[in-house]
Amino acid sequence: MKVSLVTNILQANERIAEQNKQMFAEKGILVINMMSAPGAGKTTLIEHTINALKNKYRIGVIEGDIQSTYDADRIAVTGVPVVQINTGGACHLDGNMIRATFPQFNFDALDLLIVENVGNLVCPAEFKMGEDFKVMLLSVPEGDDKPLKYPLMFYESIALLVNKIDLLPYVDCSVEKIRAESLKINPNLKIFEISGKTKVGLDNWFEWLQGKIEEKNGSKS
Amino acid sequence: MKVSLVTNILQANERIAEQNKQMFAEKGILVINMMSAPGAGKTTLIEHTINALKNKYRIGVIEGDIQSTYDADRIAVTGVPVVQINTGGACHLDGNMIRATFPQFNFDALDLLIVENVGNLVCPAEFKMGEDFKVMLLSVPEGDDKPLKYPLMFYESIALLVNKIDLLPYVDCSVEKIRAESLKINPNLKIFEISGKTKVGLDNWFEWLQGKIEEKNGSKS
Repeated sequence: MKVSLVTNILQANERIAEQNKQMFAEKGILVINMMSAPGAGKTTLIEHTINALKNKYRIGVIEGDIQSTYDADRIAVTGVPVVQINTGGACHLDGNMIRATFPQFNFDALDLLIVENVGNLVCPAEFKMGEDFKVMLLSVPEGDDKPLKYPLMFYESIALLVNKIDLLPYVDCSVEKIRAESLKINPNLKIFEISGKTKVGLDNWFEWLQGKIEEKNGSKS
Repeated sequence: MKVSLVTNILQANERIAEQNKQMFAEKGILVINMMSAPGAGKTTLIEHTINALKNKYRIGVIEGDIQSTYDADRIAVTGVPVVQINTGGACHLDGNMIRATFPQFNFDALDLLIVENVGNLVCPAEFKMGEDFKVMLLSVPEGDDKPLKYPLMFYESIALLVNKIDLLPYVDCSVEKIRAESLKINPNLKIFEISGKTKVGLDNWFEWLQGKIEEKNGSKS
């Protein structure tokens, strides 16, 4: 009874997510769903990504938070269109919430839509919203046991950004262990080692993402 | 419809949590529900707490994780009884899960039961399990915007342990801001500044916790 109810909610969400996805495909917009634990550095990574790519691509952002407009305010500084979703308690974004932002975007004028999910290493991995793919951040102060303990997010993502590697000298965390355990869960996972603070490793991420945008936007021209 | 359903689930949980609480009260056991984002340092804090207090009090631990027995294995080294709950996907512990561990404990031989919740800054705050109170950890690499963005957990906890303060020279985080924003949400919040790595500040926590154990255990003798 309880299980079938949860299944129904997930199925209803998948239908809406599929409709969103079709709309994004028609417009040739690459949509990425960015997930991590709270404070892993998603917003800072999005700021850097916008500043690196905004002269070449038209970017939009959806910020998901339980409350506050703190993250959207940060993104607005970059000059790209941004919409804040306040879930009012809900621990993840879903297809309906993304759809509710549609009237606030001009999708004919976007190449890339970055969705920053609620900071949570569990629930967001279970819900689609119409994205092309999920990516996740894991910051090294969180520890190298995270793939073992939160495997679904590592399984559902196509890329893992190991962030805050500038802190490696001061924390007990082995990037090699993160790498090995993550690849056991998801052998095709693309792994980047980065620091949002020192910007080391970010170029590899920009280049990879640019490839994905080109692939998706190819249908437009 | 959806709202009343969620309300029903929460109400059913509260009934079970209340029964658990009554049983713990009869046995004079202090039960604490420890919450934080993934990797904030809960397990390390529990290890230190056990080692500091185990010669004086009889301690038991419940470890909540989506999967793996990694944390319970760490706690078992200290020699105290520990039970691992694997939620199999669920993002928080609830009253039923705690009750399912009862046959594995001898509650006549416990003064303190520490429950380590699933690493998640959102959902665990919504569910009681029969605890005397909730405490939370926030590690400084997560950033000082967390009270603003995840207020419920700060509201529901009676103590906040600001952890990993040894990393303050290397991260952009103001403990004063954490303190000010947390107290705006919860003016009675007891705040500790600690490092699980260097052990600075832990004595204050041990002393405070000991006071709570004595209060609760008073009924026994």
